[in-house]
Amino acid sequence: MMTSSTLDLRAGRRLFFKCEQFQKVGAFKFRGACNAVMRLGDADARRGVVTHSSGNHAQALALAAKLRGIPAHIVMPSNATPVKRRAVEDYGARVVACEPTLAARETTVAQVQAETGAILIPPYNHPDVMAGQGTVALEMLNEIPDLDAIVAPIGGGGLVAGLTIAAKALKPDIRVFAAEPAGADDAARSKARGELVPQTGPNTIADGLLTSLGDLTWPVVRDLVDAVITVREEEIVQAMRLAWERAKLLIEPSSAVAIAAVLTPGFCERTDLSKVGIVLSGGNVNLDRLPW
Amino acid sequence: MMTSSTLDLRAGRRLFFKCEQFQKVGAFKFRGACNAVMRLGDADARRGVVTHSSGNHAQALALAAKLRGIPAHIVMPSNATPVKRRAVEDYGARVVACEPTLAARETTVAQVQAETGAILIPPYNHPDVMAGQGTVALEMLNEIPDLDAIVAPIGGGGLVAGLTIAAKALKPDIRVFAAEPAGADDAARSKARGELVPQTGPNTIADGLLTSLGDLTWPVVRDLVDAVITVREEEIVQAMRLAWERAKLLIEPSSAVAIAAVLTPGFCERTDLSKVGIVLSGGNVNLDRLPW
Repeated sequence: MMTSSTLDLRAGRRLFFKCEQFQKVGAFKFRGACNAVMRLGDADARRGVVTHSSGNHAQALALAAKLRGIPAHIVMPSNATPVKRRAVEDYGARVVACEPTLAARETTVAQVQAETGAILIPPYNHPDVMAGQGTVALEMLNEIPDLDAIVAPIGGGGLVAGLTIAAKALKPDIRVFAAEPAGADDAARSKARGELVPQTGPNTIADGLLTSLGDLTWPVVRDLVDAVITVREEEIVQAMRLAWERAKLLIEPSSAVAIAAVLTPGFCERTDLSKVGIVLSGGNVNLDRLPW
Repeated sequence: MMTSSTLDLRAGRRLFFKCEQFQKVGAFKFRGACNAVMRLGDADARRGVVTHSSGNHAQALALAAKLRGIPAHIVMPSNATPVKRRAVEDYGARVVACEPTLAARETTVAQVQAETGAILIPPYNHPDVMAGQGTVALEMLNEIPDLDAIVAPIGGGGLVAGLTIAAKALKPDIRVFAAEPAGADDAARSKARGELVPQTGPNTIADGLLTSLGDLTWPVVRDLVDAVITVREEEIVQAMRLAWERAKLLIEPSSAVAIAAVLTPGFCERTDLSKVGIVLSGGNVNLDRLPW
């Protein structure tokens, strides 16, 4: 994990950054995709894998399949960034373009499955994917065993659910906070209401956090996550720029959401958390369209 | 040091990146400034230190002086980037603005010395500064003892001279290559001619590499550096973007010069270098003016 005296000063406590931008494919998603692909039986594996993703899960599944030597079919919306499409193709996967709607994605995945028999590996709502993401907490606590809390961004909840299960198994008194854009706050609203509230009309630059919680990730968020912290768009951009400019951490907006959360006045006022681990979820950002 | 399978593939060999963007003040310059300030006798130290720099040496000296608890006066040209000026002031140093000419810088430094008695710590042409920069090679060879070569960007030559002396003392058969923009190629021309050729009218985005070699750094470049590799501006920009996009390494153009050097056809054709260490000299870049 990396540290920054400037960010410690701003946050009023010691921060430890788990830098998943340096993970394979530039995001934590490789952990879950790799675990899910490696756990397939040989007969299933030979059928190949398929997913729909406009983001990091696409590259992650492509690489995991390549490492196992099986086909991967990635359904991507036609408006996906060129960087992400190119990266998926570089890993040897087949990209299947579709209209940028959830309905079109699901129909296209079903077609690919019908044609090829490929196994669907969803981006987060899957036990093996969640378990794979959870390894991030094993590594964090291995390096700094006395972390008081972990803060991670939440979208579909695969990362947060996986790491919360792992972290609390290892250190029952550790706190876990999910960080969420106010413009895509389904986790905060679900947590407040005590029931799963689907995401509708998300509006945020944190493009990895647009999805709804799933029926497997939600119960973990409900029962084990200590709180969901929401942050405004300008706080995300400021945190991202601070990370780039002062800590030289090239992170995507979704990662900056977790930094923004520990810089909120409410979090800064807490006196019970000395050492806080922050999951920087990835660094796949379009360098031609930076948010400042 | 960090690695990138994408960059290894492009370079045709294994690369190990020494990431001085994560050094204090975001550049290797802190090593030399810190060594020079810490080696001052108490009486000299109390007089404070002064330098003229528009770049990383300014921040480095400011922080080194702060750590020792002595005054620092930094003469900066009036056209220095706001980020760099702000960073120097954040470290508690006094910024003295001057016209952006070498003559004005030197006159202003002399005035500060006359007024305060401060000791001049130049950015590279000084034994303690060179020795401090050389510690980068100690750390690289400590981590990967069988490096076949080290490639580092060259401007005034403090980094290259220091690391060459250190590296060849530890491992006499290691090769050292200096990487230089074709638009500021005084080291390449000096090396070719066998005598110190001053820099005139440099023109490159690698703004850390505009200066001439000094009378202390030049003999080391002449006698111990194996070769100087020059690269074109477009190669620098491509290498910088590759480092950002694929390796998530937030580096400044001067650092990218060293990556560009190992990607040149001439270097790629070499079959005698298996493991190559690359010094990424720093990451202080104006995020509002990226070169793509």
